[in-house]
Amino acid sequence: MKIYSISGIKLSSVFSGMYKKKRLDLSIIEISQGSNVSGVFTKNKAKSGAVTFSQINLKKTNPKYLIVNSGNANAGTGENGYKDIIKYCKKLSKDSGCNMSDILVFSTGVIGERINANKIIKSIPYLLNNLNKDNWLDFSNSILTTDKINKLVSKKIKIGSELVTITGVAKGSGMIKPNMATMLSFIATDMKIDKISLSKMLKNITERSYNMISVDGESSTNDSSVLIATNNSKINYKKLNSKNKKYFYECLESVFIELAKKIVKDGEGSTKFVTINVDKTSSLADAKNIAMSIANSPLVKTALFAEDPNWGRILSAIGNIDTRKNNISRIEIYFGSILVFKNNKVSDKYKESKAKKYLKNKNIEININYNTGKYKATVWTTDLSYEYIKINADYRT
Amino acid sequence: MKIYSISGIKLSSVFSGMYKKKRLDLSIIEISQGSNVSGVFTKNKAKSGAVTFSQINLKKTNPKYLIVNSGNANAGTGENGYKDIIKYCKKLSKDSGCNMSDILVFSTGVIGERINANKIIKSIPYLLNNLNKDNWLDFSNSILTTDKINKLVSKKIKIGSELVTITGVAKGSGMIKPNMATMLSFIATDMKIDKISLSKMLKNITERSYNMISVDGESSTNDSSVLIATNNSKINYKKLNSKNKKYFYECLESVFIELAKKIVKDGEGSTKFVTINVDKTSSLADAKNIAMSIANSPLVKTALFAEDPNWGRILSAIGNIDTRKNNISRIEIYFGSILVFKNNKVSDKYKESKAKKYLKNKNIEININYNTGKYKATVWTTDLSYEYIKINADYRT
Repeated sequence: MKIYSISGIKLSSVFSGMYKKKRLDLSIIEISQGSNVSGVFTKNKAKSGAVTFSQINLKKTNPKYLIVNSGNANAGTGENGYKDIIKYCKKLSKDSGCNMSDILVFSTGVIGERINANKIIKSIPYLLNNLNKDNWLDFSNSILTTDKINKLVSKKIKIGSELVTITGVAKGSGMIKPNMATMLSFIATDMKIDKISLSKMLKNITERSYNMISVDGESSTNDSSVLIATNNSKINYKKLNSKNKKYFYECLESVFIELAKKIVKDGEGSTKFVTINVDKTSSLADAKNIAMSIANSPLVKTALFAEDPNWGRILSAIGNIDTRKNNISRIEIYFGSILVFKNNKVSDKYKESKAKKYLKNKNIEININYNTGKYKATVWTTDLSYEYIKINADYRT
Repeated sequence: MKIYSISGIKLSSVFSGMYKKKRLDLSIIEISQGSNVSGVFTKNKAKSGAVTFSQINLKKTNPKYLIVNSGNANAGTGENGYKDIIKYCKKLSKDSGCNMSDILVFSTGVIGERINANKIIKSIPYLLNNLNKDNWLDFSNSILTTDKINKLVSKKIKIGSELVTITGVAKGSGMIKPNMATMLSFIATDMKIDKISLSKMLKNITERSYNMISVDGESSTNDSSVLIATNNSKINYKKLNSKNKKYFYECLESVFIELAKKIVKDGEGSTKFVTINVDKTSSLADAKNIAMSIANSPLVKTALFAEDPNWGRILSAIGNIDTRKNNISRIEIYFGSILVFKNNKVSDKYKESKAKKYLKNKNIEININYNTGKYKATVWTTDLSYEYIKINADYRT
């Protein structure tokens, strides 16, 4: 896949020694003057000092440097953890000539262990000397933890006679409650976008992408999603006609959704990629909650692993959601295009052998028609396999 | 263990053919005239017709017969499923001479498949002819599904100069979200208890027992918990002094809690029995929600399976609960009596080797001091093992 650099963004990565084995674990992103930067962060009360630090700075100004490490989440480390951040940001501030408030900090890895600030400090000169616009691939590798593959999406799109670029990187891997493992995402475009529009875009698109692979209100100590507009393109979002605005928005959204899907596909020990479409509900919240209830049911997930069309578990997961009316009798349940349940009973035409055959696919769709309204939501998830247990049981060993 | 019969209760069980293999799968409980019966049921919207039928009848009168089958949940079967219930209850009504409304129905097993009413009908004469007060053990075996062992608790207690008996049976096995598998419970006493007191007791005690091994608002299509007072004892609950009232209440509660713990201990593929005590919160809901968040975290559960004191995952699970104030800095986290986290950082005295040794035990306590109030809650759960996936993936195969 071609990775397009973004005019106004330079990156560098290094092995600083966060892991025992030699691998990239620390990166800096340099953002050119005049860029706008927006971020959304975890709602977890036990959030990392890195998140607090970044939230404070992002309110003051547009950052010039992002510093990102894997191998240690710097969470559950209290005041000491915060002092460590100050320590290595002072070094970055001094060496780069920026203010402390021009820096955002991101960490992912083990919770509760003190981060080695000295290792970071020692690596900063190298990082600053090796900044390059073409280092997106190294960056995408340096932020991985339990991920098996890196996640990178890059697009060049034509708007009028001009080309606009969007490049994004993410880390995280799908789990029962995916948001309990840290999700980091950094997406940049050279499009000119004012800060208010940028923040609105990030919020709305995150809701339809990363929040559709995770449970509302539940998130890890370090989840962060950053959107950067370097404003180096000639195209100004605000001045586009509504058709082009929509086109750009959809392209940007597709980058988020592709990265979100990559996170699910890297699902810890998953053997299936499952798309759950819930349609025709009387509210958006209903559609999302019903889809999430199915996606997060360990009983549904183990049945999918076993390729067993045990649709009763899907029905039970739906029934667990408190909707305003008891509309179970209107529900239709499909495996792909195979109708299973309608009129409050198994469909007369349903043949289990056909459903079994369908579930042998790697990509599975569960489609629900609620038939009470006009709202819909799509959630992406995985099955639950032996391998999931193995990966998460072995994480620190 | 000695099983005490309850004066006023007779039971019988049979192999009706719900399973391919020969095993007890259908039971009748006969309840003597003058008994009071109370029940609490699943809130799942896709609840079985058995639950609807029982709820309607329980509002009208005290039942004379309970009919309970395993092997088929008769859920997701709509009108046909309800007709099947009417069909076999008509037979029971005719043969026993009771009204249709004197019957409660309970089913557990696979969802979505039509129940074989004829097999039940054929077994009813045998069941009515073989009722006996000593058949509690057979009954406890007949209602099992994925359970590995039966669950039975029986107590004789002295109140004043009189003996009172409590005997109870349950089915279900602990899971990530235990309430998504059907939980059935039948507990009887010969104590005289008026219906209002009985209902109140059942509601309060269920909250402190079965609801402490499950997630609020989530329940299977068939969950039911029944409490019977046959009123055959000379002791009248209402006439007891407050000390004896309390004593009886606590004994009854201990039967519920022991059965709830047996359900957790039979946890599908579990290797650990985990008690989570959350203390000193500013509300009961906080205590329960925090304990449940820890208990239901697949990351915490897999770490316990690996005997890995990854307390950061516990901290993250706590941080996911939205309490009124951000009091993370007051929290203390203990493995058993080993202090791990205090003052927003790992304790100076904490030695991971000690915690590792502690986690090798089969019974593990996670103790949280929230230090913001006077409320507390205890939740029981299991780890998450390879075996869990195996059992739930193989359920129908």
